Amino acid sequence: MTAPVITLTTDFGDASPYVAVMKGVILSINPSSRVLDLTHHIRPQNVRHAEYFLATALPHFPPGTIHLCVVDPGVGSDRRALVADAGGQRLVAPDNGVLTGTLAKFAPATVWHLTERQYWREPLSDTFHGRDIFAPVAAHLSCGVEPMELGPAIADWVELPSRSAVRFGNRWRGEVRFIDDFGNLITNIPADRIDVLPQRVGLGGGVPRPTRWVRTYAEAAPGEVVALFSSDGFFEIALVNGNAARDLGALVETEVVIEGN
Amino acid sequence: MTAPVITLTTDFGDASPYVAVMKGVILSINPSSRVLDLTHHIRPQNVRHAEYFLATALPHFPPGTIHLCVVDPGVGSDRRALVADAGGQRLVAPDNGVLTGTLAKFAPATVWHLTERQYWREPLSDTFHGRDIFAPVAAHLSCGVEPMELGPAIADWVELPSRSAVRFGNRWRGEVRFIDDFGNLITNIPADRIDVLPQRVGLGGGVPRPTRWVRTYAEAAPGEVVALFSSDGFFEIALVNGNAARDLGALVETEVVIEGN
Amino acid sequence: MTAPVITLTTDFGDASPYVAVMKGVILSINPSSRVLDLTHHIRPQNVRHAEYFLATALPHFPPGTIHLCVVDPGVGSDRRALVADAGGQRLVAPDNGVLTGTLAKFAPATVWHLTERQYWREPLSDTFHGRDIFAPVAAHLSCGVEPMELGPAIADWVELPSRSAVRFGNRWRGEVRFIDDFGNLITNIPADRIDVLPQRVGLGGGVPRPTRWVRTYAEAAPGEVVALFSSDGFFEIALVNGNAARDLGALVETEVVIEGN
Repeated sequence: MTAPVITLTTDFGDASPYVAVMKGVILSINPSSRVLDLTHHIRPQNVRHAEYFLATALPHFPPGTIHLCVVDPGVGSDRRALVADAGGQRLVAPDNGVLTGTLAKFAPATVWHLTERQYWREPLSDTFHGRDIFAPVAAHLSCGVEPMELGPAIADWVELPSRSAVRFGNRWRGEVRFIDDFGNLITNIPADRIDVLPQRVGLGGGVPRPTRWVRTYAEAAPGEVVALFSSDGFFEIALVNGNAARDLGALVETEVVIEGN
Repeated sequence: MTAPVITLTTDFGDASPYVAVMKGVILSINPSSRVLDLTHHIRPQNVRHAEYFLATALPHFPPGTIHLCVVDPGVGSDRRALVADAGGQRLVAPDNGVLTGTLAKFAPATVWHLTERQYWREPLSDTFHGRDIFAPVAAHLSCGVEPMELGPAIADWVELPSRSAVRFGNRWRGEVRFIDDFGNLITNIPADRIDVLPQRVGLGGGVPRPTRWVRTYAEAAPGEVVALFSSDGFFEIALVNGNAARDLGALVETEVVIEGN
Repeated sequence: MTAPVITLTTDFGDASPYVAVMKGVILSINPSSRVLDLTHHIRPQNVRHAEYFLATALPHFPPGTIHLCVVDPGVGSDRRALVADAGGQRLVAPDNGVLTGTLAKFAPATVWHLTERQYWREPLSDTFHGRDIFAPVAAHLSCGVEPMELGPAIADWVELPSRSAVRFGNRWRGEVRFIDDFGNLITNIPADRIDVLPQRVGLGGGVPRPTRWVRTYAEAAPGEVVALFSSDGFFEIALVNGNAARDLGALVETEVVIEGN
């Protein structure tokens, strides 16, 4: 029997001891747990980045995985702490919308409000619930504690408002949802609903310009801006062998318009 | 029986193969050891940063954990290599003061000078003892070798000089000890000895300015500079939803003065 | 029996979900596999950086380790996907030369072309073979699938052209092959073939200047530029307690000339 995997997703960065502290807390409660970093480079306090990251990554994990997400600008306020069951995976996170997309993909999910303090670390601080609530709870889950032992089920968890792309005939208007480490712009325009291949792309309110559609980066020349479908099924804009975000001045939430014929 | 965890803390960064080399060396000696990254982003050759990081993180780990720390500007000189027993945890590091705070928290700790070359990698290089001494020793510890087999016990290990905050009535003068990845300024002024809540804060010799005291970041408005207690029990200065270090121009060792009434 | 270790080496960075996705795919196929990060900071699409990284690190790992390398600018084109046996280690990577140095060190190695789609993820994307081919194949290898089941053996894998240093009497001309996170310049001039200690060093075509030879960084004063042998056996230029690459304006491929007497 293999010990459960506990994944970690935070905005703690890598020069601070906070991640190491949480690993110590987890191993102190369950010395055989297997701790796996997903990222500690969610942009600081950027719940929407974390939400996108988790919704993209977590569906690939097997049931039984425990995911700990600490991106928590409201720490110490009255925001709740949560555990969720999503298709047999366990998610532990603050109730700030960070689980929105993940829970939607696994709907119906069950969510509990963490209230049972015997599973927390004492004394409880006001500024580091990753150490005092989330890591201990994840470790107890890995020991076999059931979510329902951790607090009451709730139905009113926080959800981030949806930001859907809209369609007008052969034209879509959406926005940049994520910029990856290569500078590729991943939009919120769903690939499977584009039935006319885009021929022009406009960014940030600018006039749409002719943009070649490619199946893969390797079809274009270095330095060419191309349109393609992202590996996760969304419309994407890339600068081959370069950084589209930097060169085109695009940010997360920059408007994207695409036009067919 | 779970295999021991070996944690890694270095200043090697993430584009160089040095960390990977150490992981390979460890797994070659003990294929079942569980390797866990704490950080590889200690600022280059910054022993004080590593010292703070370890003293904050290591007390949270369970007995039996093996910690490997390689921040080693004196590699190849006559600085000694050490193994320590700190409350049942094993620490492997150069003798340059990097363990000062950790050993103090676990006092009395026992420390040995690594001299037994049969536990090292041959040939010994002059520039990479992480690969040639520290990683092999950590791996042998995980196989059950006892510290006393690795060399003689010593009592004169290097300690970093203490930099304590000082108090004058309702006034404290200390310094920034650590800047975390959010830009929060963690000082060396101990929270449990502040009995009058600070009302004014001065940085770098400037006139102390009124600064609101809060229990948690969420009590203040975005953009407000606040004073609070860090999760680790020290006086802290934060810029809510921002980066205090950048905006206030503070560095590690910048003087901090706080005044009550 | 310990589960196999699967190492990951990519250029995916740490804000994108791509690494997490691959970890999920691996754990879904083999829940007991042990996933170990080597780096996700290969410079974007820089096959030569990855090639150097792997050739330096992989010889230190034990037989049975599975290495997954995804630095793949040609994804979706007709470049092949490979698995190799190198001294009992398994390497899974695109056929773009990234394994050149590693396979040379373990010669003779055996290489297979990945063609058996039943070991891949469906549907196959055009832009993320890390998720769809390389991670599933690595996970299946960790379950005991043999390389020969994954496709036919080949002998014509892609190799990066060699860039060897050349010697003229007491003079060597080579280039910077790698700049580590400290800014040290690691060249392609082999230490074991330098029989006259260098006294002058020239960079980028400049006149060679007197440069002191040291055995280890600690022999020189902070701020001094020194010449020494790298931990991996090459001629190296370092700025003690500083960053040689930044201060000397050196880049990867910058010419290096060293002169003895």
